[in-house]
Amino acid sequence: MLGVCYYPEHWPRDRWAEDARRMRECGLSYVRIGEFSWSRLEPEPGRFDFEWLDQAIATLHAEGLQVVLGTPTPTPPKWLVDRHPDILATDREGRLRKFGSRRHYSFSSRTYQAHTRRIVTVIAQRYGNHPAVAGWQTDNEYGCHDTTRSYGPEDLLAFREWLRAKYGSIEALNAAWGNVFWSMEYRTFEEIDLPNLTVTEANPAHWLDFYRFSSDQVAAYNKLQVEIIRQYSPGRFITHNFMGYTPDFDHFKVAEDLDVASWDSYPLGFTDMDVLPVSEEEKLRYARTGHPDIPAFHHDLYRGVKPRWWVMEQQPGPVNWAAHNPSPAPGMVRLWTWEALAHGAEVVSYFRWRQFPQAQEQKHAGLNRPDFQPDVGYWEAQQVARELEGLELPPTQQAPVALVFDYEADWVTRIQPQGREFTYRDLVWNFYQALRSLGLDVDFVKPGGSLEGYRLGVVPCSPILHEATIRALHNTQAQLVFGPRTGSKTESMGIPPNLPPGKLAEWLPIRVTRVESLRPGVNFALEWNGQRYTSSVWKEWVESDLAPVAKFDDGRGALWQHDNLHYLAFWPTVAFLRAYLGHLANRQGLQTFSLSEGLRLRRRGHLTFAFNYGPHEQQAPASPQARFVLGGRMVPPHGLSIWES
Amino acid sequence: MLGVCYYPEHWPRDRWAEDARRMRECGLSYVRIGEFSWSRLEPEPGRFDFEWLDQAIATLHAEGLQVVLGTPTPTPPKWLVDRHPDILATDREGRLRKFGSRRHYSFSSRTYQAHTRRIVTVIAQRYGNHPAVAGWQTDNEYGCHDTTRSYGPEDLLAFREWLRAKYGSIEALNAAWGNVFWSMEYRTFEEIDLPNLTVTEANPAHWLDFYRFSSDQVAAYNKLQVEIIRQYSPGRFITHNFMGYTPDFDHFKVAEDLDVASWDSYPLGFTDMDVLPVSEEEKLRYARTGHPDIPAFHHDLYRGVKPRWWVMEQQPGPVNWAAHNPSPAPGMVRLWTWEALAHGAEVVSYFRWRQFPQAQEQKHAGLNRPDFQPDVGYWEAQQVARELEGLELPPTQQAPVALVFDYEADWVTRIQPQGREFTYRDLVWNFYQALRSLGLDVDFVKPGGSLEGYRLGVVPCSPILHEATIRALHNTQAQLVFGPRTGSKTESMGIPPNLPPGKLAEWLPIRVTRVESLRPGVNFALEWNGQRYTSSVWKEWVESDLAPVAKFDDGRGALWQHDNLHYLAFWPTVAFLRAYLGHLANRQGLQTFSLSEGLRLRRRGHLTFAFNYGPHEQQAPASPQARFVLGGRMVPPHGLSIWES
Amino acid sequence: MLGVCYYPEHWPRDRWAEDARRMRECGLSYVRIGEFSWSRLEPEPGRFDFEWLDQAIATLHAEGLQVVLGTPTPTPPKWLVDRHPDILATDREGRLRKFGSRRHYSFSSRTYQAHTRRIVTVIAQRYGNHPAVAGWQTDNEYGCHDTTRSYGPEDLLAFREWLRAKYGSIEALNAAWGNVFWSMEYRTFEEIDLPNLTVTEANPAHWLDFYRFSSDQVAAYNKLQVEIIRQYSPGRFITHNFMGYTPDFDHFKVAEDLDVASWDSYPLGFTDMDVLPVSEEEKLRYARTGHPDIPAFHHDLYRGVKPRWWVMEQQPGPVNWAAHNPSPAPGMVRLWTWEALAHGAEVVSYFRWRQFPQAQEQKHAGLNRPDFQPDVGYWEAQQVARELEGLELPPTQQAPVALVFDYEADWVTRIQPQGREFTYRDLVWNFYQALRSLGLDVDFVKPGGSLEGYRLGVVPCSPILHEATIRALHNTQAQLVFGPRTGSKTESMGIPPNLPPGKLAEWLPIRVTRVESLRPGVNFALEWNGQRYTSSVWKEWVESDLAPVAKFDDGRGALWQHDNLHYLAFWPTVAFLRAYLGHLANRQGLQTFSLSEGLRLRRRGHLTFAFNYGPHEQQAPASPQARFVLGGRMVPPHGLSIWES
Ligand SMILES: [Zn+2]
Ligand SMILES: [Zn+2]
Ligand SMILES: [Zn+2]
Repeated sequence: MLGVCYYPEHWPRDRWAEDARRMRECGLSYVRIGEFSWSRLEPEPGRFDFEWLDQAIATLHAEGLQVVLGTPTPTPPKWLVDRHPDILATDREGRLRKFGSRRHYSFSSRTYQAHTRRIVTVIAQRYGNHPAVAGWQTDNEYGCHDTTRSYGPEDLLAFREWLRAKYGSIEALNAAWGNVFWSMEYRTFEEIDLPNLTVTEANPAHWLDFYRFSSDQVAAYNKLQVEIIRQYSPGRFITHNFMGYTPDFDHFKVAEDLDVASWDSYPLGFTDMDVLPVSEEEKLRYARTGHPDIPAFHHDLYRGVKPRWWVMEQQPGPVNWAAHNPSPAPGMVRLWTWEALAHGAEVVSYFRWRQFPQAQEQKHAGLNRPDFQPDVGYWEAQQVARELEGLELPPTQQAPVALVFDYEADWVTRIQPQGREFTYRDLVWNFYQALRSLGLDVDFVKPGGSLEGYRLGVVPCSPILHEATIRALHNTQAQLVFGPRTGSKTESMGIPPNLPPGKLAEWLPIRVTRVESLRPGVNFALEWNGQRYTSSVWKEWVESDLAPVAKFDDGRGALWQHDNLHYLAFWPTVAFLRAYLGHLANRQGLQTFSLSEGLRLRRRGHLTFAFNYGPHEQQAPASPQARFVLGGRMVPPHGLSIWES
Repeated sequence: MLGVCYYPEHWPRDRWAEDARRMRECGLSYVRIGEFSWSRLEPEPGRFDFEWLDQAIATLHAEGLQVVLGTPTPTPPKWLVDRHPDILATDREGRLRKFGSRRHYSFSSRTYQAHTRRIVTVIAQRYGNHPAVAGWQTDNEYGCHDTTRSYGPEDLLAFREWLRAKYGSIEALNAAWGNVFWSMEYRTFEEIDLPNLTVTEANPAHWLDFYRFSSDQVAAYNKLQVEIIRQYSPGRFITHNFMGYTPDFDHFKVAEDLDVASWDSYPLGFTDMDVLPVSEEEKLRYARTGHPDIPAFHHDLYRGVKPRWWVMEQQPGPVNWAAHNPSPAPGMVRLWTWEALAHGAEVVSYFRWRQFPQAQEQKHAGLNRPDFQPDVGYWEAQQVARELEGLELPPTQQAPVALVFDYEADWVTRIQPQGREFTYRDLVWNFYQALRSLGLDVDFVKPGGSLEGYRLGVVPCSPILHEATIRALHNTQAQLVFGPRTGSKTESMGIPPNLPPGKLAEWLPIRVTRVESLRPGVNFALEWNGQRYTSSVWKEWVESDLAPVAKFDDGRGALWQHDNLHYLAFWPTVAFLRAYLGHLANRQGLQTFSLSEGLRLRRRGHLTFAFNYGPHEQQAPASPQARFVLGGRMVPPHGLSIWES
Repeated sequence: MLGVCYYPEHWPRDRWAEDARRMRECGLSYVRIGEFSWSRLEPEPGRFDFEWLDQAIATLHAEGLQVVLGTPTPTPPKWLVDRHPDILATDREGRLRKFGSRRHYSFSSRTYQAHTRRIVTVIAQRYGNHPAVAGWQTDNEYGCHDTTRSYGPEDLLAFREWLRAKYGSIEALNAAWGNVFWSMEYRTFEEIDLPNLTVTEANPAHWLDFYRFSSDQVAAYNKLQVEIIRQYSPGRFITHNFMGYTPDFDHFKVAEDLDVASWDSYPLGFTDMDVLPVSEEEKLRYARTGHPDIPAFHHDLYRGVKPRWWVMEQQPGPVNWAAHNPSPAPGMVRLWTWEALAHGAEVVSYFRWRQFPQAQEQKHAGLNRPDFQPDVGYWEAQQVARELEGLELPPTQQAPVALVFDYEADWVTRIQPQGREFTYRDLVWNFYQALRSLGLDVDFVKPGGSLEGYRLGVVPCSPILHEATIRALHNTQAQLVFGPRTGSKTESMGIPPNLPPGKLAEWLPIRVTRVESLRPGVNFALEWNGQRYTSSVWKEWVESDLAPVAKFDDGRGALWQHDNLHYLAFWPTVAFLRAYLGHLANRQGLQTFSLSEGLRLRRRGHLTFAFNYGPHEQQAPASPQARFVLGGRMVPPHGLSIWES
């Protein structure tokens, strides 16, 4: 199903009815509204104006459109901020982050929590049982503009409470953090500061707890909204629109309180701005299509975050916020929409209905131009709507491959990279690209999530192995491949007493006695299966009674296996992973492909989809018996085919 | 005529007379003094000491030298700042900009305005009718060191008043800025903040008004000084010394209150520091000459700002403030001086008489060395003085080509570049270089300035077309070439209801329905006149009933013409502009040249000047009948020739 | 002798005895302890706990180990900072530098000085006569994390007092700084601010005095500690552990109050992080060995700082703080240790005994792993200890070559580089590398230090020639080579009245009339001894009655000589210096070598050492009669040989 984001408050009322009619004509079913409209809903302190929203919803309803109503908390009005400056967040440099754009609040502000309760209650009470309201969106894009972490007085107070609750006694905290080092010991929780603006880096355990706290504050703030909505709006789903790779908070945790995950997909901007790392050469090649693995990575991630998921904002044309904002190649809006559906999206909703000719996003395209004419995206959306009419999409099944995605791993390696090029993001991306270029479908699983039923599992890097994670790793027949630094940290961000991989060593008897981080250009090689692979970035020294599966050229063991567990004691490149994971997949009975650049596959039930991000026609890897239900054996450039197998 | 900047307060009194004598011997006529001497003029609050200045002026007068007296406002003394800390400016990061160098004041400080009135009145009263005082300079280099915009409490109060005066009602402001977006609506003018330190970018309309306000504050501050001087110093000219490309304020507006524009020309520093964009290869080639178009660009700009203009500070040797400070190639001080005269300068004044061996500029060369010996520049200045004796310079005539230079365009595209490489500066520079390499003389015209009498006009980019601009564009027979984004904005920084080019579409019936900004390396091509041109950066989609003059290789129209109006729907390179503007110029009966690198032409009345920035002798493109009045047909490296035609 | 840094407070008490025993077994003699333990020594205000330290020292003593006791002042505890926030430093941007890591104090805080007196007195009283305490270390790594200069209210007050003491009258200061420029004149010392956060750069004389003041504050703070220790701990040596190239304070001055200099040697981190400039190619080549001249440079520097010197912290494995942290090549820990001894170190002490598995440095290797097993460094240290048993090291003799190292020169050129690439560090490094690749031993001499007995002296750049310096330069028979800008400044950071080289011109009659700083790529050439040398960065114009020894290709003189004095009027490359200094050395009867990359020589008494940083065996340049006392004629990769000659 398709939807759109709409801002009735931006347009004259006499246009609303026509807008609604044309949405229906386009084939849209859902309309998200309201999430930035606080100044219109409460123009003066305590004076509410719902009349316009009543009419807007009624107008959409009249055309049979379903509404997703956003709470307006990403943008508190100026009068509220002026009355309560303690709402504002503080950046890492200690500067107040002022009113004048959006997300100008700290999750830890008690005042803001109170006013959030107030506004959400009023809105939920009014619209909770409206027949047009199908669901709710809390706030908008948590964490956008680096707003997860704030460094002000309210944050400090909340952080101290969080620590007190976690550790109970200051002695326990001192021991957990190792504060005897550099005389960092505290006598009371009141002595603890935030970890920013220290003379040199603060204790990494201090940072890690601050990251965890900040993530928890997002979840708590979201839960605060959810509980009110559930009370007044029974039977409606609740979602939040997440963003492209934003590891600052644990999305799994936030989503525990949601019914539906959703995310905002801007393939061109993400490719230009390195939301996931894209080489310069790929940035040029995919400037007008986006990198072929970027949307899929997020579709799979957010399907892992929640089985029911949407694309809440789908790029419909050039955007305004990247360093470069080209026009999508013709056909790409349709392709992106279909790809989301192939990966299991319930709804793909375009952002936005019409380009608004003022303010910050005035150059962000919509389905319609600011002169009220349909833009390119309108026609491509309509095409998808029509194509969908003839096609029933089967339910999404479990994939054969699991990727254990670990937000905490991002924090740990970001706080203490040890080598400049070691980032969790890049490592996960290598694993994902390798799997996708083999034509394999991938499920993202949270640490501790069940791995039953998978044939292959990859854990790119999980420094901290919590009890639940260990248990899940044990309860699977899958071949499990662990990346470097897995098990290298205790829960308190220390080195395990038995050295890495810590608790994992009970099942995979190896011991990492030393690690090296390497400057780009300081390379090493390893040989596996008669083939030589070069890498850099990271290398580990392992002691074990096992014989290594592969060796570095200095004779040390590079790859270790015991039963179904495999450990990579180095930074694996895509080339190596494609070979090794392909080999394991085949051994596990999975068919793999050697997909050419730009071609990607995905199954949904009995349907197989092929997407061609490249500029030339490519042949779909379909069996001769395949029955094509959309497109054909030759997949056109920037096009797709679907077949039954 | 020639002049020099002099600081008698830096030198022992017993040297003044000899200095004055040697100035005369060098052939200098004007001496600028006083602009940094507040601590000597008012050493204690309210206690003035004019005795030294009386004597200094008398000494210069005795040698027949004319004085340009600078008001000392760029450097208020410490005691004044300590008494009134509200004088200080605040930077964009919110930090106070402290005393200890210069320009340590905010234009919006009411205290500083009052003290400016006080000191300027006293000085103007004392020297206003002195026979040696030929003119005045207000302050020094407005905007230097990023001082146009300030972000403190005084600035905020003044900004609110400015907005109140402009919009009358807060509703009007909210509508103009589109503040319904992201709930940015204000209830009163007191709710408005400055646009810095917001969570993400502030409303571009907010920024644009803040830029306009800041520019207006410069003009108001200058006017405050001018009015006092006019009252007490009748018959003297008033100038201000502007800088190399400094778009932060509207120089046309400031100059409305002046008699003479002047500017400070440092060709080597400007080339090294990218005051105008210079490729790395050109930086090396022109390290000791400066880029051949940089001085001329500014001469033409400031002649457009005011018909009477000077070079107030001419580089006489190595300076101290660039990243690299080489010595000018022998002859360059002479060449630069002559080039300024060729472009119409009344006076070229060297900075400074003698290198001061202390403080910030101790490594800034003067005409004399700190050991009191003449430096290289002295001899080159003297040579020009002697050459000038035998030559009467005719008045400067209107050029055949007009370039509409638009400060607001710089602000609009800087606030909202939409593509990282799109800067107004670079675009204007492309047009200017193309025209100059064709051997064409160029006048800079302000938006709304008359275009009558020109054969060719270029508007590199004017997003906001004010009424007067439209009128001027209509009242000319010139071929008019518009660059991309012209007409793309309303006065309130929105998209025009009819889409770009907005009001221009009434005369040039096209409609820009989409724009693309492109990463370097994402290129496109167009074909015109049988030739293929490649470009990048920016590309527009145009709808029109017209047939395009040239097409992109994707078949869309790239270049549109109607009557005498031409529109470039892309980022034009110098190569393309040289071809297209040369073609139009020829069609309009103008002779063009294909000047080799480093050779540049300029006419003044019946005289034609050729300047050779290159290291090899070059032949002047003079007719066989040309009569050379300086130099000859072969222009030596770093030299010039002048002939009558 | 060998030592180690140990933190008993990090480990269970029941492990101390075994640790001590194994230290002895390893062959270690000294143990540094205590320097970060304030929170354990005074866990509550005024309540001291020495019991643990008593026992720790007793335990070490029992194994015959000698203790170097560190004062715990680099890490005041949180309770002290909370009681006296004026202890904290302020960074250049005006931000408080908070508690949470180390070095969180300003040298100018009167409160901190008082508490330093208090804690040092208590500790010195208690342990001053302990038989196991052989010496003391004051604080730890002064200046680390950019802590030499602080910009807070306490610093301002102290700076004003320092200025008052230096200048006596404000008129004298105004004259010395040239404050008439830009009306920067002060009426009282109370008007003076710190030079940060000015609108554009502050007066360089203002900066230079602030740099001098900040350096003096370090020396005064150190002296404060030293005087207390001397009072209560007679007969013990006092040291401080300096760092890799840290020019912010004058180490010669601080060391005047010490008995022993020591420094912390981390060859791999220093190579990766450009502590001295290393090309990208060398960074790769020497990633696991460190650049071969980096340890030696510092050994020679700190031997110049104090004849008795130690390496207090020797890298024993990968560290945690560089951008990349590779493992040292096998053998390098041994090589580095021997090289320090060859250069005259009394003791080489490893950092640290055991890797601590928590807090900031948890990935910093020690001699032992966190799982209590010996790490690679342990075995290499033990090997050195055994090798040392059979070998008596003779005293260190004066080297034939002196390098005058001038901290103030770093400040002057950093404050006013005049050309972006001109840094004192790079220039000194060029001289040092040239000398060392010729196989020459080098002594570092402070400005004004005696040059008697040297055959060759180099003064890479000493802009300010104090009286004592001039005197020392005059009292030597050495050939003296001066680099550019020597003598170019007065004591007040002005240009000398007679132009550069100022006072030096009395003996070397030249006059620098102009300088040029050049963009990389703007090259010049000079010819000397039939060979052409290319350079960039810096070039001077010299007037003299002398005939130049070498000329630039523009005909000006490049190299000037008079008697034993030589002046380089340009930025000298390593290639040129190797040729010219080698020529002078040979003329002075010194043997030079053309050492291959990675091979380095050093003599200590009758012993000659060869160190091979390269990956291949190399032949030692030993005479056929040489008697090898360690290793042999072929020096293995990452190994060394020692012979008697
Ligand atoms: Zn969004
Ligand atoms: Zn100037
Ligand atoms: Zn250290």
